[in-house]
Amino acid sequence: MTTSPATETETKRLAIPTYDDVCAAHERIAPWTHRTPVLTSQTFNDMTGADLHFKCENFQKAGAFKARGATNAVFSLSDKAAEHGVATHSSGNHALSLSRAAQCRGIPCQVVMPHTAPKAKMEAVRGYGGEITPCEPSLSDRERTLDGVIEQSGAHFVHPYNDPRVIAGQGTCSKEFMDQVGGLDAVIAPIGGGGMISGSALTCSTIAPNTRVYAAEPAQADDAYRSFHAGRIIPDDAPDTIADGLRVSLKPYTWHFVSHYVTDVLRVSEGEIVDAMRLVWKRMKIVIEPSSAVAVAAVLKNPGLFAGQRVGVILTGGNVDLDNLPWMHDNR
Amino acid sequence: MTTSPATETETKRLAIPTYDDVCAAHERIAPWTHRTPVLTSQTFNDMTGADLHFKCENFQKAGAFKARGATNAVFSLSDKAAEHGVATHSSGNHALSLSRAAQCRGIPCQVVMPHTAPKAKMEAVRGYGGEITPCEPSLSDRERTLDGVIEQSGAHFVHPYNDPRVIAGQGTCSKEFMDQVGGLDAVIAPIGGGGMISGSALTCSTIAPNTRVYAAEPAQADDAYRSFHAGRIIPDDAPDTIADGLRVSLKPYTWHFVSHYVTDVLRVSEGEIVDAMRLVWKRMKIVIEPSSAVAVAAVLKNPGLFAGQRVGVILTGGNVDLDNLPWMHDNR
Repeated sequence: MTTSPATETETKRLAIPTYDDVCAAHERIAPWTHRTPVLTSQTFNDMTGADLHFKCENFQKAGAFKARGATNAVFSLSDKAAEHGVATHSSGNHALSLSRAAQCRGIPCQVVMPHTAPKAKMEAVRGYGGEITPCEPSLSDRERTLDGVIEQSGAHFVHPYNDPRVIAGQGTCSKEFMDQVGGLDAVIAPIGGGGMISGSALTCSTIAPNTRVYAAEPAQADDAYRSFHAGRIIPDDAPDTIADGLRVSLKPYTWHFVSHYVTDVLRVSEGEIVDAMRLVWKRMKIVIEPSSAVAVAAVLKNPGLFAGQRVGVILTGGNVDLDNLPWMHDNR
Repeated sequence: MTTSPATETETKRLAIPTYDDVCAAHERIAPWTHRTPVLTSQTFNDMTGADLHFKCENFQKAGAFKARGATNAVFSLSDKAAEHGVATHSSGNHALSLSRAAQCRGIPCQVVMPHTAPKAKMEAVRGYGGEITPCEPSLSDRERTLDGVIEQSGAHFVHPYNDPRVIAGQGTCSKEFMDQVGGLDAVIAPIGGGGMISGSALTCSTIAPNTRVYAAEPAQADDAYRSFHAGRIIPDDAPDTIADGLRVSLKPYTWHFVSHYVTDVLRVSEGEIVDAMRLVWKRMKIVIEPSSAVAVAAVLKNPGLFAGQRVGVILTGGNVDLDNLPWMHDNR
């Protein structure tokens, strides 16, 4: 497994966040976010032979880890920069996390959302006072629509993941995790745009350099896998997967961390995602969304990588449409 | 609100468990059960004006608080008494908790279950090695069928709630709860046969005598409400409610605690149960079964009783059939 990390020239152009930024973020977001609990499960330990620890970001404010990065970005802004509010495009969790963070700070939030996004997430954005502009479900149309929104409103753009403040915010999750459960041999999280993986890599490479970082990805949206093996970003404009949080592609900031620090990208099928999600609901009695289940599915699929080890699994969110559960349809 | 407690003569015939029995039970079951976490929810606090604390017995072994009482009963038995295994009748959670406890001890378990019990619970009983004998969904047929099973096998009967060992076991839940969250003004739990309410009353009346104990009951299975107000047990043979764990009636041991220590019995409709269940899944991201939602619904329905107070809500279990969720049908 060889990959070419981002070149030095590319990296120098970016303001790569450091672990100090993670620590500053942790202090900044503490009043507005949860220190989420870590759960264990005998069932999953028995199935994998591993000692699994589940970091429950589904219990995070706004129902997903995205609250960390969004809150850090919003509360990092000067009063002047925050004047016209914030704006973003997002398939859901970043949208509602940014809306909530803006509401906490008392500034407006504009969100460009694909019209195919889960109804529950749209309602939640509006519940936090966010204003939605719909777009087509492709990255290109999202970005085009957002440009118009920003031009009109003068809002400050907070990218869902290609932003050092967001990555530093997501890094607070693994900081807590390492504090709660020391000595992990590996950490695994799902990868979409790569914000959580980047934050995890940033934190682990600094305070737990022996902990391997795995990214788990839907095979039907495997741009990170293909990029990882090609040694450069290969974007995917409109992949189709039930893991609605993972339909986006790597960008320079997250590619920096993926190319430098990730041990491997593990792919899973749609059926494996649904089975893992259902099994977590059934046995752990917690609600996780399909994106979270991607990491669980990858551990179940690769016991050889994890058996006999202490493994941290980041359950990234729990925002699902309860009227539209995947095992009610035939998604296989 | 006046009630006549069980007469002294009645009480004297019963071996009423004491708080010492709860402490002994706690030590006995510790290796086989979880100390379950307590969660809070800003959403539910905002909705009720109360400071709510949720004791998550849905995370308990076998998915319900019943693991406490069943494990205490099974591990209280002498080797001689345990020789031919244990037997019971149950709508589900006691059945699988007793099967699991018997499996932990290495003895057989026979279970009489209504053929209408959720499929998921039947599968779980078999998964723990329990042997199921089906019966009609009425208390009278359960008891009749069980008599035959015991006669044939010589198994030791562990009643799902009318048993001092079971009540002492359930009392360990509130013991932990008071330790985790001190100074509760009230505790509320669902009531079916009354095992959890009896255990809670036993513990609270000893170590937290100022904590009021409320029982929450489906209006469609309100034998406890009617008994409470009549001052005597009024059984209900085959009530119909979505809260499948609460279709049974009080018996002398649980009537003792209900009549002496319960502040009030609060009734909720089927629609209120489903709404509360769905809201817990959606906002707290945890899987609870309809019986658990009865207590949540009662708090939501009676803000006047709880606003401004510290309230403990016991979420009794999380065993649901994911293919058959109540909001998929019209149960209202």
